[in-house]
Amino acid sequence: MGEIAVLRLGHRIERDKRLTTHVGLTARAFGASAMYFSGDMDSTVVDSIGDVVDRWGGEFTVSYISDWRRLVNSWRDMGGIIVHLTMYGTPLREAIDELRRLWRGGKILAVVGGEKVDPEIYKLADFNISITTQPHSEVAALAVFLDWLQEGEEMMRSFPGAKITVIPSPKGKKVIKRTD
Amino acid sequence: MGEIAVLRLGHRIERDKRLTTHVGLTARAFGASAMYFSGDMDSTVVDSIGDVVDRWGGEFTVSYISDWRRLVNSWRDMGGIIVHLTMYGTPLREAIDELRRLWRGGKILAVVGGEKVDPEIYKLADFNISITTQPHSEVAALAVFLDWLQEGEEMMRSFPGAKITVIPSPKGKKVIKRTD
Repeated sequence: MGEIAVLRLGHRIERDKRLTTHVGLTARAFGASAMYFSGDMDSTVVDSIGDVVDRWGGEFTVSYISDWRRLVNSWRDMGGIIVHLTMYGTPLREAIDELRRLWRGGKILAVVGGEKVDPEIYKLADFNISITTQPHSEVAALAVFLDWLQEGEEMMRSFPGAKITVIPSPKGKKVIKRTD
Repeated sequence: MGEIAVLRLGHRIERDKRLTTHVGLTARAFGASAMYFSGDMDSTVVDSIGDVVDRWGGEFTVSYISDWRRLVNSWRDMGGIIVHLTMYGTPLREAIDELRRLWRGGKILAVVGGEKVDPEIYKLADFNISITTQPHSEVAALAVFLDWLQEGEEMMRSFPGAKITVIPSPKGKKVIKRTD
């Protein structure tokens, strides 16, 4: 299986703090190994996701990048596929077989925007993919895309080194806390 | 096929405005017919989702409710199933066949919380369901749950009366605007 990273474009420090954090946590929980974000640098996003990684385990990095085009280009130079999630793109259903095939042999950068996305990304992306043609949420689009790409296997994932692990329960909360 | 509504618990007017709006837009785009929210009353959430419904079509209502237990109880009295999405619950994979069967013959209220959820919901729900056992986002959990429940069929949905309709395109944006 290939590698997945997420690029979140156009972060605004006032408005997007929690949404960008949700994008990062969703990326991590659904099997990506990194989130990059552009727009405003925001250390609270980096810190709050870093804190989750520290407690809940696994390998996941968050990085602010000042030049997203450079990331996209270097990703492509290394053979990565750029998939921009947008309500205007090709329906996921039509492209999913090809995306799975490309991902199994390589790596995918999933790009999500904020409310105003630089139109250049539509040209730079290898695929513009829509998760419904309706306005909703970059968090929802990312989650469903990663779930389809990995055919639900991401839900079986384990997170090595976790200090907290949930034991699934039909009622209430069961967790194991490791103290060391 | 059955009916789906979403209940968002514990909305906080300052912190959650955009996340609750994303929950509502995700509910609508993925086939629910209503979102209810409790916590703080917030007319901007109602207005911004209402504005999307007006322009993008379909039937979808947003309502603030002061007493969420009453909604849960009346839903159940009408034969509805209460599904609480929580990282502590039964894995989606284990329950999905039963949930699909129940939904086809009836209706489902999907409940999502904010950061602090009243523990009573764990008991009142018919199912506590986890979408991964990791912390991420109520928006992501809702989207993946609705997608699994409807087996991707929700992406084929049409929205009658739309003033704006997207024509899927591999590059750029194509929309039809109806003026009347």
